[in-house]
Amino acid sequence: MAEFSRNEKTEQRVRVFSKSLKNGRMRRVQRLINALLPSELADVLESLPPAPRAAAWKLVDLSVEGEVLVHVNDEVRISLIEGMEPRELVDAASDLDIDDLADIVEDLPATVSNQLIQEMDAEDREYLNRVLAYPEDSAGGLMNPEVVMIRHNVTLEVVIRYIRRKSSKEELPELIDPLYVVDRDQKFLGKLSLTDLLTKDADIIVEDVIFGADETIEVDAPDSEVATRFEHKDWISAPVVDSDKKLLGRITIDDIVDVIRDEADHSILSMAGLDEENDMFAPVFASSKRRALYLGVNLITAFIAAWFVGIFDKTVEQVVALAILMPVVASMGGITGTQTLTLMIRGMAMGQVGPSNSGPLLNKELAVAGINGLVWAVVVGVIAVTWFDNSELALVVATAILINMLTGALAGVVIPVILKKLSIDPALAGGMVLTTVTDVVGFVSLLGLGTLLLT
Amino acid sequence: MAEFSRNEKTEQRVRVFSKSLKNGRMRRVQRLINALLPSELADVLESLPPAPRAAAWKLVDLSVEGEVLVHVNDEVRISLIEGMEPRELVDAASDLDIDDLADIVEDLPATVSNQLIQEMDAEDREYLNRVLAYPEDSAGGLMNPEVVMIRHNVTLEVVIRYIRRKSSKEELPELIDPLYVVDRDQKFLGKLSLTDLLTKDADIIVEDVIFGADETIEVDAPDSEVATRFEHKDWISAPVVDSDKKLLGRITIDDIVDVIRDEADHSILSMAGLDEENDMFAPVFASSKRRALYLGVNLITAFIAAWFVGIFDKTVEQVVALAILMPVVASMGGITGTQTLTLMIRGMAMGQVGPSNSGPLLNKELAVAGINGLVWAVVVGVIAVTWFDNSELALVVATAILINMLTGALAGVVIPVILKKLSIDPALAGGMVLTTVTDVVGFVSLLGLGTLLLT
Repeated sequence: MAEFSRNEKTEQRVRVFSKSLKNGRMRRVQRLINALLPSELADVLESLPPAPRAAAWKLVDLSVEGEVLVHVNDEVRISLIEGMEPRELVDAASDLDIDDLADIVEDLPATVSNQLIQEMDAEDREYLNRVLAYPEDSAGGLMNPEVVMIRHNVTLEVVIRYIRRKSSKEELPELIDPLYVVDRDQKFLGKLSLTDLLTKDADIIVEDVIFGADETIEVDAPDSEVATRFEHKDWISAPVVDSDKKLLGRITIDDIVDVIRDEADHSILSMAGLDEENDMFAPVFASSKRRALYLGVNLITAFIAAWFVGIFDKTVEQVVALAILMPVVASMGGITGTQTLTLMIRGMAMGQVGPSNSGPLLNKELAVAGINGLVWAVVVGVIAVTWFDNSELALVVATAILINMLTGALAGVVIPVILKKLSIDPALAGGMVLTTVTDVVGFVSLLGLGTLLLT
Repeated sequence: MAEFSRNEKTEQRVRVFSKSLKNGRMRRVQRLINALLPSELADVLESLPPAPRAAAWKLVDLSVEGEVLVHVNDEVRISLIEGMEPRELVDAASDLDIDDLADIVEDLPATVSNQLIQEMDAEDREYLNRVLAYPEDSAGGLMNPEVVMIRHNVTLEVVIRYIRRKSSKEELPELIDPLYVVDRDQKFLGKLSLTDLLTKDADIIVEDVIFGADETIEVDAPDSEVATRFEHKDWISAPVVDSDKKLLGRITIDDIVDVIRDEADHSILSMAGLDEENDMFAPVFASSKRRALYLGVNLITAFIAAWFVGIFDKTVEQVVALAILMPVVASMGGITGTQTLTLMIRGMAMGQVGPSNSGPLLNKELAVAGINGLVWAVVVGVIAVTWFDNSELALVVATAILINMLTGALAGVVIPVILKKLSIDPALAGGMVLTTVTDVVGFVSLLGLGTLLLT
């Protein structure tokens, strides 16, 4: 139930923003903007139509512009960048952490990114290139290469002095527990907890108290796998290494939370043929073009179903009741199939459904569809007899319902497995293929049986 | 694209498990079980059909059984608990952290939970009652009441000595940074970072280096709001307080990751009328019963659509082509509406769509549907003229497509707003209400215009 009561704060903010912007109370808007965190501001900006969004963006302080750009989705980011001067963009981006900068750098105009890279010091430039060398959705693309590294062969005393020095120069990241321990070749050896640093004797050698030497992430691991690893192991941070165990960077849990949220958005939106990186208020023509393809494919599938109805045109002419009952048969099969398909898509995404257990799952889904099919076939049969006073018609529609619900369950298991083999995202295409199957089978069984028994 | 390549490891594990269990290679299964973390084991157990699940569960060591029970979903937990002796259950549960224990205690048989509470020490019992006093989906239900508390008026030196003592008795939780600072009435005053403890002078008083006094969570805040707060502020942990600011417990990021994952599951599954706490391999009759209601409601909506077709039975008899084109008109309106509805549901869940911007969003969606409606109306018209050689029919179906796509966009915005006002989850009911509207409007406009122009 949490789903639809969630985030009343964001909703309130969007409301107050919209109202104040409409009434031109820019001082109020300015105060609101100043009171928000960059990520909160990003949520609000995504929610505003283009004109108020541009007006609000002008009031955002340069010091947080970079962070806001990191948090908005791709298309909104591009819309915000379009209204900025090159110099402003360079300044906004130059304060960002390397991993955040890497996320937005390819959306920047070439002049801006060149300028930015020119103004970086050599170390930062090397870091940025290191992150950009890996795909955005891999561990390498997620990691922050700026890591505090401790040598394995020093005493805790030396580590504490080092941390003090770094702290006084304000060179420490916010989260440093645990510290990462490396050898002279930067090979990752294990972790050192701040608690140990605080509580153990100062003359102990680091390598005697390190732990978690094998709790590393390969730099080319896909981000979804990294997220699962964090979830299972309750990690707060994890070291990213190459195949020689050389320490390349660090991933922290806040990046993982973003990955999980993005995955959830992707699942929900792709089932309707939408994309999580699109602007809700994108220009009308751009949105229309984007959705046209999905609608076009759907039109083809709808005409396939219509063509099958067309085969039985003589039957429909003789027994109009069949045309009336067509939507009922199609819909019951479609819903049954969608339930099974949704279980499959979610199970496959979590790795919990695969070749080894889709057999037993199919058996169970078929049994469930069979039982419900019988129940609702009887109900529909009774309604049909009452409505049209025709017991043969009732038999036809009841049988068609049962066939189509069993088809739905079968298709719900088989279609995502086939789509996955064809490297097509089952979440994106599964629903459309499934309803085509249940429409066609529903119409053919209803009208085919009707032709045999009623004409 | 991550969605369907995700979690190959879990899939592999499920496969190896199933195979080894089938072939009776129990030593192999035992080795696999021993190599997995409790949460990984929970994923695998959820994926196994009842018989192999029970066989695998017998091999799980008592020391991790409690943790596994915490991680499986409600229905699978109940199925596992059914096969356990009371004494085994008491032992399995007694090692759990208080917040985890609170999650499963109500699924335990009364004899077991009574025994468990009897064997607890007074402090733990008080902690457990504190957590159970709040709803499971609130900050109070999520929090762990076992918190390391530091007094505000001592020196850092004293704090370090206290931490050392606790550490030597192994009384420290895994994650202690930052420490929470309270006054003598346990009122929360702020946080103390381990880095400060390490780097600042030992004779500094705690209250001079604390921070984040207002970064607290009210004990009755809903879990989804807590999750948003963690996401925006990049927190690793946060103190939970009552209205007098008294420190009651602590929420850590791993709990939040679970909340986010559950919310995502809930959104995806509830759109198909399913529940994330159900066992994928639940007994057939239980599953059938559960899905019957959703199917029954769908049947009512399908008969509403059919009834509208029935009004035009004479028209259908005369112009069978209209019956053939019915699925096309219904489907194009349905898909258009589903796209808008999905945007709305996701936006409302994130708080990004509400009364203040659903007006502009409606305008945009209507414009998009209008443009695509015109395009696909022309396409469908051309196909209809080619197929049926009837230009009036083409005009009728083209007009019906345009009307129904506009209806879809309108309904996609309006329906979730109305459902929310009625306190009905738009994710659960939105799709069904929407397709009823687009079916009815599609059929009525197609057959109504057909009656006017073609008969």
